[in-house]
Amino acid sequence: MSGRGADLSRLSLNTATTKRWTLKQAVDGAARAGLPAVGLWRDRVAEAGLSAAARVVRDAGLRISSLCRGGFLTAPGPDGRRAALDDNRAAIDEAATLGTAELVLVAGGLPYGSHDLAGARLRVAELLAELAPYAAQRKVRLALEPLHPMYCADRAVISTLGQALDLAAPFDPRVVGVVVDTFHVWWDPDLAAQIARAGVEGRLACYQVSDWLLPIAADALLSRGMMGDGQIDFTAIGRSVTDAGYPGDVEVEIFNADIWASDGEDVVSRMIDRYLDLVLPNLLPDDRGGARGRAPWPV
Amino acid sequence: MSGRGADLSRLSLNTATTKRWTLKQAVDGAARAGLPAVGLWRDRVAEAGLSAAARVVRDAGLRISSLCRGGFLTAPGPDGRRAALDDNRAAIDEAATLGTAELVLVAGGLPYGSHDLAGARLRVAELLAELAPYAAQRKVRLALEPLHPMYCADRAVISTLGQALDLAAPFDPRVVGVVVDTFHVWWDPDLAAQIARAGVEGRLACYQVSDWLLPIAADALLSRGMMGDGQIDFTAIGRSVTDAGYPGDVEVEIFNADIWASDGEDVVSRMIDRYLDLVLPNLLPDDRGGARGRAPWPV
Repeated sequence: MSGRGADLSRLSLNTATTKRWTLKQAVDGAARAGLPAVGLWRDRVAEAGLSAAARVVRDAGLRISSLCRGGFLTAPGPDGRRAALDDNRAAIDEAATLGTAELVLVAGGLPYGSHDLAGARLRVAELLAELAPYAAQRKVRLALEPLHPMYCADRAVISTLGQALDLAAPFDPRVVGVVVDTFHVWWDPDLAAQIARAGVEGRLACYQVSDWLLPIAADALLSRGMMGDGQIDFTAIGRSVTDAGYPGDVEVEIFNADIWASDGEDVVSRMIDRYLDLVLPNLLPDDRGGARGRAPWPV
Repeated sequence: MSGRGADLSRLSLNTATTKRWTLKQAVDGAARAGLPAVGLWRDRVAEAGLSAAARVVRDAGLRISSLCRGGFLTAPGPDGRRAALDDNRAAIDEAATLGTAELVLVAGGLPYGSHDLAGARLRVAELLAELAPYAAQRKVRLALEPLHPMYCADRAVISTLGQALDLAAPFDPRVVGVVVDTFHVWWDPDLAAQIARAGVEGRLACYQVSDWLLPIAADALLSRGMMGDGQIDFTAIGRSVTDAGYPGDVEVEIFNADIWASDGEDVVSRMIDRYLDLVLPNLLPDDRGGARGRAPWPV
């Protein structure tokens, strides 16, 4: 593996990439490969148990770059609203217990049969206002993730980084931030400007990388690929993220049936190679004071 | 059919919707159903022969709401550039001969293996500048169509209406306009503002309707559906188009394997019903001076 001895100090393995691994296996695999961080999905945390999960990561000496995910704020009616708030408060508590500052939020799509996109977007703004004080008390940041517009109907009515920043605008940047996931935003003609804006506003909470593969997979959620296997320009996006002053970890989060079927060690090895080739060269160089990791409470 | 006797004076059948019909069959089918207009694809025109196609439509007393399509301006190198210019000049000539003012342009995607999205977008702007004088001489408008971002890599690097308007900005609005196709733009958080802008700038060249179906089809191009079968809010978008003062035809353009396998008469009948239910109620009312059709040379 070419990664041995190289600078992996900002590379984080998101547990979604090595889906067949338990949380413990993913943490051990990341540590063996010399990675300093993992991004955790809540299902893996739940399997392990919250306290046990926190201990496993701590004992391995890793940090948690983000917890995925809260959100799904678009369910209509009092019951839908209450369930969403309950689940997100639980996710905030989990993030706090795990000691990660960043809770990724996926907005949720249109309710089944609904055509009211404007209404769904309004509910996201309303529930965000309910959740922000709770998150602030626990020193967890709600990291709004714009998803590719092809998921607007069924998964996330936040479709662009600019829209995510508009939704975040009423809140303290330590409480509501945004995620830049290359797969979701690479096509956006306004991307460079919005990443710069996120930097100025202090809201760049998480940088996730994966590639755009064609054809779109039968399960559209699984269309992501390893960096370099698709058509995303990691140089342009990486430079924007760097110019915006992002000091945090780079999470590799790939939903892909072939990758999930592969041996976890091989996936991590390939991920490191591609990171070193395509992603790291565009990150903040050491002599510009690039941080290693991030403060538990963004300042 | 509920359409008999109703106001169909702005409804246009795009030949892509009844794919198995020849141009003559589509024109006859539209005329039988009381429609005033058709939108033509160049492959159907070529099959019929250009002069014959023009005659068939004229003899049926229909107008041509648009010709689809020119574009594919992103091929690299002198040969790619020359081929694109040649093909688009031919398309402009065909539009002029057919007597339609609107030539729909689909930008083209990334060249195979390329990661240079910014470069591809720059080539679109450059070739547009080459083509605009040629189009102006022939009184044909180049109608830039933003395609859904899921087609950015392989089909159209113009991904939002705002981007299309930015590309159009250097040119006379009679020469370069934009298309609003609900399937492609419905998700855009900035849509209402950009449709309003298109109205103010006099660039709203074509309004096409179809719905967003889930799951995304195996061939992603065929994910469109009949209005009302998916989750698009035709009321909100229709009102924006109306408020922008759009006086033109409404084209129904649906790529869908089930619809293509259906009897053409049935498709047209269903299309009329859905148009009357979901689209017409949001169009410019008569008492606001809504035009019927459009001038051959937009003013």
